[in-house]
Amino acid sequence: MSKIQGFTIVEDGTVTTPKGFRAGGLHCGLKKTERHDLGAIVCDIPAVAAGVYTLNAFQAAPLKVTKASIGLEGKLQAMVVNSGNANACTGAQGELDAYEMRARAALAFGLPEHYVGVTSTGVIGELLPMAKLRSGIDRLPDRVTVNGGDDFCQAILTTDLTKKTICVNLTIDGVQVNIAGAAKGSGMIHPNMATMLGFITTDAAIEQEQLQQVLSQVTDSTFNMITVDGDTSTNDMVVVMASGMAGNSLLQEQHADWVAFTQAFQYVAEVLSKAIARDGEGATKLLEVSVVGAATEAAARAIVKTVIGSSLVKSAAFGADANWGRIIAAIGRSGQEVNTETVDIRLGAFVVLEQSRPITFDEVLALDYLQGESIQYHINLNMGEHQATGWGCDLTYEYVRINAAYRT
Amino acid sequence: MSKIQGFTIVEDGTVTTPKGFRAGGLHCGLKKTERHDLGAIVCDIPAVAAGVYTLNAFQAAPLKVTKASIGLEGKLQAMVVNSGNANACTGAQGELDAYEMRARAALAFGLPEHYVGVTSTGVIGELLPMAKLRSGIDRLPDRVTVNGGDDFCQAILTTDLTKKTICVNLTIDGVQVNIAGAAKGSGMIHPNMATMLGFITTDAAIEQEQLQQVLSQVTDSTFNMITVDGDTSTNDMVVVMASGMAGNSLLQEQHADWVAFTQAFQYVAEVLSKAIARDGEGATKLLEVSVVGAATEAAARAIVKTVIGSSLVKSAAFGADANWGRIIAAIGRSGQEVNTETVDIRLGAFVVLEQSRPITFDEVLALDYLQGESIQYHINLNMGEHQATGWGCDLTYEYVRINAAYRT
Repeated sequence: MSKIQGFTIVEDGTVTTPKGFRAGGLHCGLKKTERHDLGAIVCDIPAVAAGVYTLNAFQAAPLKVTKASIGLEGKLQAMVVNSGNANACTGAQGELDAYEMRARAALAFGLPEHYVGVTSTGVIGELLPMAKLRSGIDRLPDRVTVNGGDDFCQAILTTDLTKKTICVNLTIDGVQVNIAGAAKGSGMIHPNMATMLGFITTDAAIEQEQLQQVLSQVTDSTFNMITVDGDTSTNDMVVVMASGMAGNSLLQEQHADWVAFTQAFQYVAEVLSKAIARDGEGATKLLEVSVVGAATEAAARAIVKTVIGSSLVKSAAFGADANWGRIIAAIGRSGQEVNTETVDIRLGAFVVLEQSRPITFDEVLALDYLQGESIQYHINLNMGEHQATGWGCDLTYEYVRINAAYRT
Repeated sequence: MSKIQGFTIVEDGTVTTPKGFRAGGLHCGLKKTERHDLGAIVCDIPAVAAGVYTLNAFQAAPLKVTKASIGLEGKLQAMVVNSGNANACTGAQGELDAYEMRARAALAFGLPEHYVGVTSTGVIGELLPMAKLRSGIDRLPDRVTVNGGDDFCQAILTTDLTKKTICVNLTIDGVQVNIAGAAKGSGMIHPNMATMLGFITTDAAIEQEQLQQVLSQVTDSTFNMITVDGDTSTNDMVVVMASGMAGNSLLQEQHADWVAFTQAFQYVAEVLSKAIARDGEGATKLLEVSVVGAATEAAARAIVKTVIGSSLVKSAAFGADANWGRIIAAIGRSGQEVNTETVDIRLGAFVVLEQSRPITFDEVLALDYLQGESIQYHINLNMGEHQATGWGCDLTYEYVRINAAYRT
């Protein structure tokens, strides 16, 4: 365990580390290869639950079903996920299928239907192969164990190259509280096969309203601050389940450990977000863009996302090119008010622009830095006190190959 | 000549075809290769002039100078352009240099300074090498002839592979009126070396206010509807010069041939826009996206631009993949209101979505169509009467190569 701020990282921790959670995955035939394509996280008791959902107008059917489940009591006891098929743009039949997926899982796990959430990721516009899914769901309960966190992580992957999981531990009211997360996504959103999904479990005791508040706030500065290609999926979703089995007194803003809890929660979301960005389709490196000195937080975020989403900035990163002209051009087209005379830009430790004027820097050392696996762009607008940070990846030949060849 | 609507295309016509115009180009040393990097269009008399300029906050110095020139009398007699250096983010010295460029050209051509416009395209953040530029400008008058349209087109290219020029002819008041255009741009905007520049000349007699109105309106549906990578340059500009030497009576909205003139003008701008999109960095094909049935024109345009700018749609086009899921996801994230139950999508003649439901189509024939050099996506929102069309290109390995390797 390593200590960070008020919490520690649990080595090999997964979504089943928080008390009360089991998980698992299996192959039911939605993916052509023998990889897991169906998984579930199950809690021993109804867990307090909250969710955030894609803003894409063509929101997929399972998201509506999960929203309906959480809407009833603010609780979930199982989240069931399939990969290989997004159940998006599938009309009324797709919605019936998502509800049947929920009903079947409720039956299999012996739960009321509204304690079950469902989600799907994969190809858009094809109906779920329900026969395969039904038999898979029926076999799920046997596979869901306290050791199944890793299998669950595998079940949610599509074009991802790496599993994305994290668990932290902190002390609240003298008891140990765990917060764990699993995510998938090889881009902020990919309409066909790389939806961003996040699953966070915790044994903290917390009321639904507070849990939703923490999730929404943290999502704004983590999951919503990553982009691989700017394409927002129809299936994005992050769900958190809190079992309350850690035994702390109910968390709310007046609680002495509220800040420690939200910081730990933020850390879990940030680690997953960076893991998604680093594993962006075809990526060779993680880009981190920070904007400080902005007039508003909204401006800071908009500028971060414009820079991190620029194909030209991303291509330059791939080429390890200290091409700050592309950064300044992206800032200028962000639609935010900027003072064109006061911008500073640093690439790692290399100051390249000060008060909007080019600064001579050591191109050889900068090249060395930019060839690394993780590079940071720092932008100071010198206009105010607000800031934001976001993550993305470089644009590579491999990204084009993956997405030119993908469906066919 | 081929007849289109009320006008004909002048084969081999250039910006010097309209009466009163000369043009030319030469190499003065701003580009490393021996290609032309300085050019000018000159009119025998002060031409009525209008311009549209980039909305990037970091607008380059020469754009301010050109605006100031046109602002004084609404006239220009010479436009001087260099490629290889954008004179952007160059501070007070950059502005002095742009004014000196104007003054030097005014002296060389024997004109008042405010009859000269200047513009630059190339690397951001480096000062113009003024010694080379001065000697180049001094040699320009000898190179500016009625046969120099082609040389001018060469002088404005950067990463472009093709020259972009068009000339049309129509009859107004019984006299022949020409409208010609030259453009550069290997992307809607590229912050470093591929700014979009457009130069339109006409011998039509027209007042400045009307000319500005036509240019602004036409730009909204042509130059502003292309995108290669969504990155808006600091140097984008389209300038039109009208010599009035055709001898027609002054054009204004009540003129019997107003519509014919604006249609011809629109055609010139559209041909140049498509040529820029087709020559997008690394492009192998031209994409045309049309949205009809939109509730508002703004919504139609926003959706066109979101679809045509999607890296996933562009990658699928490169791979000739009939991946309509990416199109629907782009529509859904456009921020515009859409009815998720009523969308039709056609790829060329292949209906793939009707009332938001997948339609089976012949994948082999569709592949054949999508492997062509020019492909069209038709979207009907079935929500209203408004429409828009835009142009872009596919995202290819070559785009990544060009932009990863570019500056270094």
